[in-house]
Amino acid sequence: MNDQQNFSKEAKFAREMDRVDPLRQFRSEFVVTEPDLIYLDGNSLGRMPLRAAERTSRLITEEWSAGLVRSWGNSWLTAPSDLGAKIARLIGAQPDEVVVADSTSVNLFKLVVAALLARPGRKIIVTDEFNFPSDLYVMQGAVQMLEQGHEIEVARSPDTVHMPTEAITRCINSDTALVSLTHVAFKSGYMYDMRSITATAQAAGALALWDLSHSVGAVPLELNRNHVDLAIGCSYKYLNGGPGAPAFLYVRRDLQQELLSPIWGWMGQQAPFSFDLDYDPQPDIRRFLAGTLPMLSAVAIEAGLDILLEAGMEALRKKSVLQTEYLIYLFDQLLASLGFTLGSPRNARMRGSHVSIRHQYGLQIDKAMINAMNVIPDFREPDNIRLGITPLYTTFEEIHIAITRIEHLFKYGVYKQFSSEAPTVT
Amino acid sequence: MNDQQNFSKEAKFAREMDRVDPLRQFRSEFVVTEPDLIYLDGNSLGRMPLRAAERTSRLITEEWSAGLVRSWGNSWLTAPSDLGAKIARLIGAQPDEVVVADSTSVNLFKLVVAALLARPGRKIIVTDEFNFPSDLYVMQGAVQMLEQGHEIEVARSPDTVHMPTEAITRCINSDTALVSLTHVAFKSGYMYDMRSITATAQAAGALALWDLSHSVGAVPLELNRNHVDLAIGCSYKYLNGGPGAPAFLYVRRDLQQELLSPIWGWMGQQAPFSFDLDYDPQPDIRRFLAGTLPMLSAVAIEAGLDILLEAGMEALRKKSVLQTEYLIYLFDQLLASLGFTLGSPRNARMRGSHVSIRHQYGLQIDKAMINAMNVIPDFREPDNIRLGITPLYTTFEEIHIAITRIEHLFKYGVYKQFSSEAPTVT
Repeated sequence: MNDQQNFSKEAKFAREMDRVDPLRQFRSEFVVTEPDLIYLDGNSLGRMPLRAAERTSRLITEEWSAGLVRSWGNSWLTAPSDLGAKIARLIGAQPDEVVVADSTSVNLFKLVVAALLARPGRKIIVTDEFNFPSDLYVMQGAVQMLEQGHEIEVARSPDTVHMPTEAITRCINSDTALVSLTHVAFKSGYMYDMRSITATAQAAGALALWDLSHSVGAVPLELNRNHVDLAIGCSYKYLNGGPGAPAFLYVRRDLQQELLSPIWGWMGQQAPFSFDLDYDPQPDIRRFLAGTLPMLSAVAIEAGLDILLEAGMEALRKKSVLQTEYLIYLFDQLLASLGFTLGSPRNARMRGSHVSIRHQYGLQIDKAMINAMNVIPDFREPDNIRLGITPLYTTFEEIHIAITRIEHLFKYGVYKQFSSEAPTVT
Repeated sequence: MNDQQNFSKEAKFAREMDRVDPLRQFRSEFVVTEPDLIYLDGNSLGRMPLRAAERTSRLITEEWSAGLVRSWGNSWLTAPSDLGAKIARLIGAQPDEVVVADSTSVNLFKLVVAALLARPGRKIIVTDEFNFPSDLYVMQGAVQMLEQGHEIEVARSPDTVHMPTEAITRCINSDTALVSLTHVAFKSGYMYDMRSITATAQAAGALALWDLSHSVGAVPLELNRNHVDLAIGCSYKYLNGGPGAPAFLYVRRDLQQELLSPIWGWMGQQAPFSFDLDYDPQPDIRRFLAGTLPMLSAVAIEAGLDILLEAGMEALRKKSVLQTEYLIYLFDQLLASLGFTLGSPRNARMRGSHVSIRHQYGLQIDKAMINAMNVIPDFREPDNIRLGITPLYTTFEEIHIAITRIEHLFKYGVYKQFSSEAPTVT
């Protein structure tokens, strides 16, 4: 078959997969303004649910402008817990183990400091080089601030795709206070063995904290079943909560009395409206709240949560695996011979919902995709082009067209017209 | 004259004051859905500017839904500094001394910890009993977390309205690391002598931090002229930024290199998109940023800032003083004989933009005002009814009607139908 015949055959297959996709109706829940644009960056900022526009519009036209301060007495004050309870259902936790609050960085700070102070005498935080640099920054700041001689041990990997579980677990010992990792690595998409690492940490007397920013809404999570101590995550990636939407945190119920947030805000106070001069923390997960939730950004989160709960994480995972497998199949057919290498695990059980493809001209190719080919991925140093799959709205046909466009921009040298300088902001 | 004649005479005066008010056109910048509702709680949640609805709508329909992740490259990434520069103009600071970020509590935490670590060896934070309890909580949490033997000295006042400057300054000595106060007291509206207290703190080698939540947009501020070290404030009161809108922080330029936020987030990193594993803080005010700003709530802030800058803080203060004076005049005429006492300073130079009136049945009267009389104040324990004046939209006529309604609900015993239990949530 020639290229054209191959394209037609694949296009037919992709459209047939979309036709039989049991989740196909969920794409219509999202605003799609440019049908030709292929958006593979839902792992950085998810598309906007139609219901989010409706909800924020109601806040503006009714709750703020007409209800004014009275609206605090309605749904606003309980929003951190109400939204948290919905996220809990997505991550295998109890409703009273999750709250929405602050940013991911601030939540990580609160839980890292709480964990270190709950394990006095132990001086080591174990993490790894695949973690978000921003998570490492937060830990570095906490350690410097506490001035108690804590150190951060950064586990390394023999390759850039897989982090062997043993590379982590061999760092854990009786001096470990905390093991803090990101469950799905932001570059390679490698998915960690949460159960095994958590168990090793706990057997050594340490606490285990997972950053779920690339997992929540992307893969099924079982925090209770895996006996996870602490977790945080953002809501603007696979949860489709909107730019910079407030983050969440999870603390296992039986740890909630033992741990204390270092940021004692009024939302964490037991009786915030008695205006006592001394702090008396809530007896439950709400003690990890600090100040007031930004309500406009907060209410937008609920739409995406409801859609994910309606679709169901098992069905979403099934489609996600089919789609990343299909993407890798097309990668092998069309891109592998052009100098690309796969930056993600081939084993779907070790992979989240994005696929990294790598190339020595990665940054130029990324820019050409966005500017010349109407495909939006994102780029992560040094050479990773991340292709994010969001099964709620990504179609098989989009995956096929995207890979074909990458092949074309490479074959016809389109990328050479773009500079290799200055990373794009995504 | 009888009551009716008196009412007519006052009503005529109030309407005349409104007619000649040079700021009268600014009320039309705000959404007013119920003309009969008298809203005197702009010091808790400001009314919604029409432009805020337009701006958030543009974010939803264009920037998020159509622009998607590309919008970060436009105005989103610089929003903390861009909004901060506008706030700087309202508080007498330089554009590069203010950023918008996080909540008031989180910003206070960052600056309190930064200040304590910048003054090693000094063990005392001086504050007072008029401060927001939530500010005291944040300080208490910081002290407990640092485990360095810091203590909080809480200055007391001989009465509940005025805090004598000497009550604060006599607590300041060579062991003081930080003086942390709220510039306009949330209960009485007492306005502190910022210049004198700051100078005393600095003469003793301590840093001075001011919470401007009840000052910004309410009274002119001169942070640079008063050589203020540090400040924080919220944006949802007199700035009309929307429920829980992100807060701001100020660090005097020459302190920015010396102080370091304890929360090392990616927005405070010098080159956030190089993904280095080690934190290298921004050399400027941006080092006090942590995580991602909630953009929907953030963009709503700009509308209120623009309106305040157009009106000008001097003109606003002039009207605010006229209005609080007028309110106190009516209080003396109509309420003083009914068991009410004034909970705010009579001297306008010592008063912010709200007036507290106190009564032994305060909570019941507050509820009756809201539910039976269509006047919204708020209530602060034990007996303060706060009447907030927002000169951008409060009219003299509203003040007259509000005080008359309070007189009536008291004279006719309406308040007796309301329970004295459970504070309202405002």
